[in-house]
Amino acid sequence: MDIELGRNRKVRRAYGFDEIALVPGRGTLDPQMADTYWTIGGIKREIPILASAMDGVVDVKMAVALSKLGAIGVLNLQGVQTRYENPDAVLDQIVSVGKDEFVTLMQKVYAEPVKIELIHKRIKEIKSLGGIAAVSATPQVAESYGKAATEAGADLFFLQSTVVSTTHLAAAGFEALDLQRFIDAMSIPVIVGNCVTYEVTLELLKAGAQAIMVGIGPGAACTSRGVLGIGVPQATAVADCAAARDDYFAQTNNYIPIIADGGIVTGGDICKCIACGADGVMIGSPIARAVEAPGRGFHWGMATPSPVLPRGTRIKVGTTGTIETIMRGPASLDDGTHNLLGCLQTSMGTLGAKNLKEMQQVEVVIAPSLLTEGKVYQKAQQLGMGK
Amino acid sequence: MDIELGRNRKVRRAYGFDEIALVPGRGTLDPQMADTYWTIGGIKREIPILASAMDGVVDVKMAVALSKLGAIGVLNLQGVQTRYENPDAVLDQIVSVGKDEFVTLMQKVYAEPVKIELIHKRIKEIKSLGGIAAVSATPQVAESYGKAATEAGADLFFLQSTVVSTTHLAAAGFEALDLQRFIDAMSIPVIVGNCVTYEVTLELLKAGAQAIMVGIGPGAACTSRGVLGIGVPQATAVADCAAARDDYFAQTNNYIPIIADGGIVTGGDICKCIACGADGVMIGSPIARAVEAPGRGFHWGMATPSPVLPRGTRIKVGTTGTIETIMRGPASLDDGTHNLLGCLQTSMGTLGAKNLKEMQQVEVVIAPSLLTEGKVYQKAQQLGMGK
Amino acid sequence: MDIELGRNRKVRRAYGFDEIALVPGRGTLDPQMADTYWTIGGIKREIPILASAMDGVVDVKMAVALSKLGAIGVLNLQGVQTRYENPDAVLDQIVSVGKDEFVTLMQKVYAEPVKIELIHKRIKEIKSLGGIAAVSATPQVAESYGKAATEAGADLFFLQSTVVSTTHLAAAGFEALDLQRFIDAMSIPVIVGNCVTYEVTLELLKAGAQAIMVGIGPGAACTSRGVLGIGVPQATAVADCAAARDDYFAQTNNYIPIIADGGIVTGGDICKCIACGADGVMIGSPIARAVEAPGRGFHWGMATPSPVLPRGTRIKVGTTGTIETIMRGPASLDDGTHNLLGCLQTSMGTLGAKNLKEMQQVEVVIAPSLLTEGKVYQKAQQLGMGK
Amino acid sequence: MDIELGRNRKVRRAYGFDEIALVPGRGTLDPQMADTYWTIGGIKREIPILASAMDGVVDVKMAVALSKLGAIGVLNLQGVQTRYENPDAVLDQIVSVGKDEFVTLMQKVYAEPVKIELIHKRIKEIKSLGGIAAVSATPQVAESYGKAATEAGADLFFLQSTVVSTTHLAAAGFEALDLQRFIDAMSIPVIVGNCVTYEVTLELLKAGAQAIMVGIGPGAACTSRGVLGIGVPQATAVADCAAARDDYFAQTNNYIPIIADGGIVTGGDICKCIACGADGVMIGSPIARAVEAPGRGFHWGMATPSPVLPRGTRIKVGTTGTIETIMRGPASLDDGTHNLLGCLQTSMGTLGAKNLKEMQQVEVVIAPSLLTEGKVYQKAQQLGMGK
Repeated sequence: MDIELGRNRKVRRAYGFDEIALVPGRGTLDPQMADTYWTIGGIKREIPILASAMDGVVDVKMAVALSKLGAIGVLNLQGVQTRYENPDAVLDQIVSVGKDEFVTLMQKVYAEPVKIELIHKRIKEIKSLGGIAAVSATPQVAESYGKAATEAGADLFFLQSTVVSTTHLAAAGFEALDLQRFIDAMSIPVIVGNCVTYEVTLELLKAGAQAIMVGIGPGAACTSRGVLGIGVPQATAVADCAAARDDYFAQTNNYIPIIADGGIVTGGDICKCIACGADGVMIGSPIARAVEAPGRGFHWGMATPSPVLPRGTRIKVGTTGTIETIMRGPASLDDGTHNLLGCLQTSMGTLGAKNLKEMQQVEVVIAPSLLTEGKVYQKAQQLGMGK
Repeated sequence: MDIELGRNRKVRRAYGFDEIALVPGRGTLDPQMADTYWTIGGIKREIPILASAMDGVVDVKMAVALSKLGAIGVLNLQGVQTRYENPDAVLDQIVSVGKDEFVTLMQKVYAEPVKIELIHKRIKEIKSLGGIAAVSATPQVAESYGKAATEAGADLFFLQSTVVSTTHLAAAGFEALDLQRFIDAMSIPVIVGNCVTYEVTLELLKAGAQAIMVGIGPGAACTSRGVLGIGVPQATAVADCAAARDDYFAQTNNYIPIIADGGIVTGGDICKCIACGADGVMIGSPIARAVEAPGRGFHWGMATPSPVLPRGTRIKVGTTGTIETIMRGPASLDDGTHNLLGCLQTSMGTLGAKNLKEMQQVEVVIAPSLLTEGKVYQKAQQLGMGK
Repeated sequence: MDIELGRNRKVRRAYGFDEIALVPGRGTLDPQMADTYWTIGGIKREIPILASAMDGVVDVKMAVALSKLGAIGVLNLQGVQTRYENPDAVLDQIVSVGKDEFVTLMQKVYAEPVKIELIHKRIKEIKSLGGIAAVSATPQVAESYGKAATEAGADLFFLQSTVVSTTHLAAAGFEALDLQRFIDAMSIPVIVGNCVTYEVTLELLKAGAQAIMVGIGPGAACTSRGVLGIGVPQATAVADCAAARDDYFAQTNNYIPIIADGGIVTGGDICKCIACGADGVMIGSPIARAVEAPGRGFHWGMATPSPVLPRGTRIKVGTTGTIETIMRGPASLDDGTHNLLGCLQTSMGTLGAKNLKEMQQVEVVIAPSLLTEGKVYQKAQQLGMGK
Repeated sequence: MDIELGRNRKVRRAYGFDEIALVPGRGTLDPQMADTYWTIGGIKREIPILASAMDGVVDVKMAVALSKLGAIGVLNLQGVQTRYENPDAVLDQIVSVGKDEFVTLMQKVYAEPVKIELIHKRIKEIKSLGGIAAVSATPQVAESYGKAATEAGADLFFLQSTVVSTTHLAAAGFEALDLQRFIDAMSIPVIVGNCVTYEVTLELLKAGAQAIMVGIGPGAACTSRGVLGIGVPQATAVADCAAARDDYFAQTNNYIPIIADGGIVTGGDICKCIACGADGVMIGSPIARAVEAPGRGFHWGMATPSPVLPRGTRIKVGTTGTIETIMRGPASLDDGTHNLLGCLQTSMGTLGAKNLKEMQQVEVVIAPSLLTEGKVYQKAQQLGMGK
C-alpha cells in the first residue's frame, strides 16, 4: 500500500506472470529426477495440472484420458454435457456459427435446463472407463448437484464461481449458500474458488475447503476486466494466497493445496505459477488445442453465459497434437505448449528444485517481457522481415 | 512529488484506468441488490451515466430516450442542433465527407452562428417529450445562453470548457466570466468542468457548482495531449478531485457529485471511475454506437472546433445496438459495451458493494494492462493466428 | 542514483517526453495573451523554434521564410548547399533513390568537398533576401568555416557535434578545438551542442556559449541508440541542463538559453520541452513536411554521413502544408503538426502561463503514453475496425 | 529485494538492455584512439567478440575468417560439423525445410552420433588455415571431447550448458562432471557458462574457469522463457557477474573476463554489455547474417535439440554483407549491424572511454525504449505511412 493513486488514496502494485522470470541458482539436476507429484483431496497425481471445467476443454473422454496421463480433468456440471443427451451435435453448432451470432447462440444453448440424470450418467461414464470423476458447479446449484454427484460416485467436487465469497448477500426470495455447512455435508472433498486474497483464502481453509482455486480475471477467454473492471494479476494473487496456506498449515498442520487458475498458456507459465507458491494449476486453452478436445479447435469462457451480461469470448486456438503430446510429449512444437510435464521437469532441473516444495522457493525476479523496440525488431526477424 | 524528473525538479506519477484493476474482497451480493442511484442537481437517477454534450452523441431524441432509461443526455448548445433549423442534413454531410476534408468542413459548419430561438426550441422539444433538459455551453457564451436555457425550462446547465479556471485572464476588450456571480445568478443548478486537481475542485465547490466534471485529455476523440502536451491520467485525477469533494462535505455537510469525463469505453471503465471516487460518469463514444445516435456510427470531439487550431478527430465507432441495449441490455456483445447498468451492478455484486458509496471504497490495485509478449500471443490466438 | 542495476552498480531513471504530461492549474488566459518571445544571441524572435541544420530541412529559401515568420532556420555548412553549386539536382537524386542504395549514395554525395566560396554565397543569399543567417558546422572545421561565415555576414554560428566535449582527445596529427579560445575569437554569437548533462552545460556556459543545444539520441532520423547504445531521454536531459542555466544565471546574472533538440514531432512536444525548462526548441521532421522544404517530403539525419559507420535513416515524412501553415496556421490537421505557434499559445493559455518563463514552471506529471490494450482498442476504433 | 511480489515474498527488479542507455560525460576522443583489445585464455584479440557455437553461425571457414579479422569463432563439437563428414548437405536441408517440419527434421539430424575423428579433423582444418581453434561442448561429453580437442590442438575449450551448476545432481547411473577436476585436468584454458549470478560466477572462478559466459534466456533464437519460465535480463546479470569478477580480482590479482552471451543484435547492444561490466560478448544472429555464414541466411538456437522438449526456433535473418563488413566495415547499413568494431570505437570515442576498462565505467541510465504512442507514430512515418 505504498503507491499514491491520488490524494488520500494509497494502493498496491500487483504483478502478473508476464512481469516475472525465474532465476537459476547454484544447483541443477537431471530433469527426470524432478519429483512433480502432488495430492489433491487425498488423490495423488504425477502431473499438477487440472483441465478447466469448460465445455470446449473437458468431456467424458477427455476426463478419462487426463486421468490416465497422470492429471485430472474437471467436468462442468452446468454445461452442454449435462444439458444435452447428445452434446456433440451442440458442440458442432457452437464451433461452426459466425462470430456475430456466437453470443446469441450461446444464450440459447444454455437456456436448455440441466438434467440430474445426465449428471449421474456422465460421472458413471468417467468412472466406468477408469477415470477420476472431478466435477464442478456454482454455489446456486451446489446443494442439489453436489448431492447428485456424490451419489453417482464423483471423487472431487469443485465449487466454482467467478468470485467466491464467504458472506454472500442474496436477493429476497433466494438464500445464500452456507459454505461451511455445505462442505461439512458433502462426503467427498470440496475444492473452492476463485479468490485472490490472503483473507478469503484463510476463511475458505477454515471452512474446510480441500483445495483453493486462485485467479480472477487473467484468463484468455475471460473478459472480466473489460466488463467489470475486475482482475488481479496472477503472480501476486498466487503469492498472497499461498501465504495463507502456509500460515494455515503452521497453525493446523493441515496442508491444503493452492491451484492457480487463469491465463496459463505455456509450460513456462506453469513453472512461474508454482514458483510463486501454487501447488497445482488449472488450464483451459492449452488443453483445448488437443485433437481429443471437445472444443474442436475452439475455446470459450464461462461455464454458464449470462442471458443479460454475457462474458467470455470464443477463441480459435487450433489443434496442435494429441493430449498425450501436450501433457507428456515428445514435443513437436518448441514454444512450450507441448510436453507440459517435460517443461516443468526441465525447469525444475535447471533451477535445481527436487520437488514442488523446492520449486515454490526458487528465486523470482521482476523482469517485464514488455514489447520494446528491440523485441519488435527481433520478432520482425523471426518473421523473415529483417533486412 | 517524489520522482526526480531532473536536477531540482520533482514530479509526481499519475495513473490511468488502463493501469488499475479492482480487487474482490470478502463479501459478494446478487447484482440486482446493488443500488446504483445517484443525485445530480436535485435530480435522482438510477443510472449514474451522462451522455456527452457532443453533436454525434446527443440530440433531442437521444436526450429523451436516455431520460426514460434512467440516465441523462446533455445537449450541446453550441453545436449543429442550435445552429441549424435542420441539423440532420448537416450531420449527413459530416459523416459522409472524406477524412482529409473533415477538418475543413467542420470549420465551415461551425462558422454558422448559434440562434437563441433554436436554443429555446430544442429545450422545449425535450421537455415536451418528457425528457430531462440538460444543456451545455462554454464560459464565453454562458451568460446569454444560460439565460435563454433557463427561460426555455432547462433542468441542468453544464458550464464546460477544456479546462475550467477560477481566475481566467481575458484579452483586452473581453471580460472573463465571474464563476461565482454566474452560478449565483442562475436559477437552475450549474455543473462545472473540466478540472483535474484538488485545489480547483475545492474552489469550484465553494463557488457553488452543483457537480464537477473531471478529466482533461484522456478521451478517444480528444487530441489535447498531442496538440498541447496536456492531459492527466484519469484514475489519479478522479481520486484527487474526489478528495476535495469529501473535504468539502466534511466542512459543509453539502455533498456535491464528481463526474469522470473522458476516455471511458467499457462498463469496466465505468466501474473503475466510481471505485476511484467518482459519483457518475460522462461518456461519449459508447453512446455514439447506438442505433439512435445522431453521429450515425461516427463520433467526433470538441463542441466547437477552433478555426485556427482544430482538435478532436472523427472516429468511426460503428453501430452495435439500440440505446436501450447499451444502457440496460440484454447484451449481445461480450466486451463490456452493452448493458452498462448490468456491468456496474454485476461488478458491484462481485465486489460486495451495496451502493455507489461502498463502490467508491473497494480495493484498487495498480496492474498495468500493458501489451506484453504474452498478451500479443493471446491476441494472436483470438484472431485465429495461433499455430 | 537510487536504482540498483546490479550488485555495486547504482543508476538513475531518466524520462522522455512520451512519459510526461502537463497539468493545468488554477489560472487560464486567452491564448493571444501568451507571450512567446525569446532571445538568442541578442536576436529577439516571436517563435522559440529553430529549424535543424539538416539538408532536407533548411536551404536558403527556407531560412528566409522562417525568419519572416518569426523563427530561425539554421543552414548546414557541411551539407549539399555548400558542396554543390546546384544542390537541387543532388536533392532530387537523394529522394528518388531506393532504400537499399540510400546509404551508399549519401556516402558518395558527401565525398564532394565543401567550397569556402559556397559558404560565402549561401550566407549572402540569405542576408540579401532579408533572412537571419544562422549557420552550423562541426568542431573539426569550425575555425575555417567560422571565419568564412563571419566574413560573409552570418548572424549566429552553431557549433554542433553529436556530443560536444570540453576535453576532446584527438588522434596524433590532429588537434582538438579549444572551445573557449574559439568562442573568444569569433565576433558573432556561438551556440554550442549537443550535450545532456548539468556538468557539461555549466562548462559550456563558462566557455562563453550563447546558447546550449540539448539532446543526444532521441531524434526520429537518428540511430545513435542502436548503433552506439547512446541516448538520453529528453525530459530529464532538458531539466538537468536547464538547472545548470539557472545556477549559472544566479552566479553571473547572464541568462543563456537552452534549446531542446531531437525527437520533437508535435506542438505538444514543444510545450513539454519548455515545461521541462527549455527556452527554445530545434526541430527537423515537422519542418521537412512543408511544401517549401528542400527534402521534398523526405527527412534524413546526420549532417555528414560517416564513410565507415553511417547513421541517420531517411524517413518519408510527406508534405502536409506550407511552412506558414506549419508555423502559424490556420491548421488543417488536428494532430498538432500544424500551427505550432498556436499550439504553444493555446497550451500556455490553458496552463495559465503568461510567458515562457512561467511556462517553464507549470506542473509536470509522469504519465506514460504506453501502448496499452485500451489504447490499441481505441486506435482500432479510430481506424474503423471497431465492431 | 525491495519489491513485494506478494505477502511474505520479496523480489528484485532486473533490467535488460532494452531498458538502459549510455550517457556521454565531459570528455570525448577520436574513435581510432579507442583501444578495444582484450585477452581471453592468454590470447589477445583486437575485437572483443566471440561468434556463438551454433551450427548456423560457425564452421571451419568462419572460425578462420573471424580469427583473421581479430575476433574468435567457437565451433560446436556437438553439431553437424562433427556428426557429418559432409555437413553442407545437411545444412542445405535444414534451411530448405518448411517451418512445420523443422523441429522434427532437427531431431532426426541430431540423432546421428558425433564422431571423435571429425572433432580431430575440424580442429586441424582450423589450425592449418591459420585460425584460432576455440571449441565448445556440454558437461555430459566434456571429458571425452575435451581430451580429443586438446589432442587435436585446440586453443580454447568452452564448457557450455544452458545453466552451468557447480553442484549438479545426476540421475542414477550417470555421474555429474566435477568442474574443478575437469578444469585442472585440461591442459588448455577452459571457459565456462552460462550463469547469471554473483555467487555462481565466484564459484566458477574459484574452480579455475578462464572466462565466464553470462546470459540465460535473453537470446533471439532461445525460447527458454516460454518453455521453462527462466530468463534473467542481461544488464543486471552482467553487472552482477562483473562484480564477482572484480571481487575475485581484488582477492587474487587474477583478472578473468566476463562474456555477455545472448540477445545481442546491434553494435549498440555490444556497447551496453561492456558498459554494464562485460569484457567481451558472444553473438550469434549478427554473424549468421554474413555471406559466409553456414546458416545461409538462417539462424537457429540450441546446439543439440532435445528429442522430447525441443527449444530454439529457426529464424530467417537474411544475408546483409561479408563477415568483414559486419566486423570491421565499412558499413552499408545504418542500423548498427555492420562494422561492429566501428560501432564500439565510435561509442567509446563519444563516451570518452580510452579502453574497455574505462568503457565499463561510463554512466548508464534506465531509459526504457518501450513502444509508446509517440514511437509508433515515428515508426509509421519511417514506413511512409505519415499523413
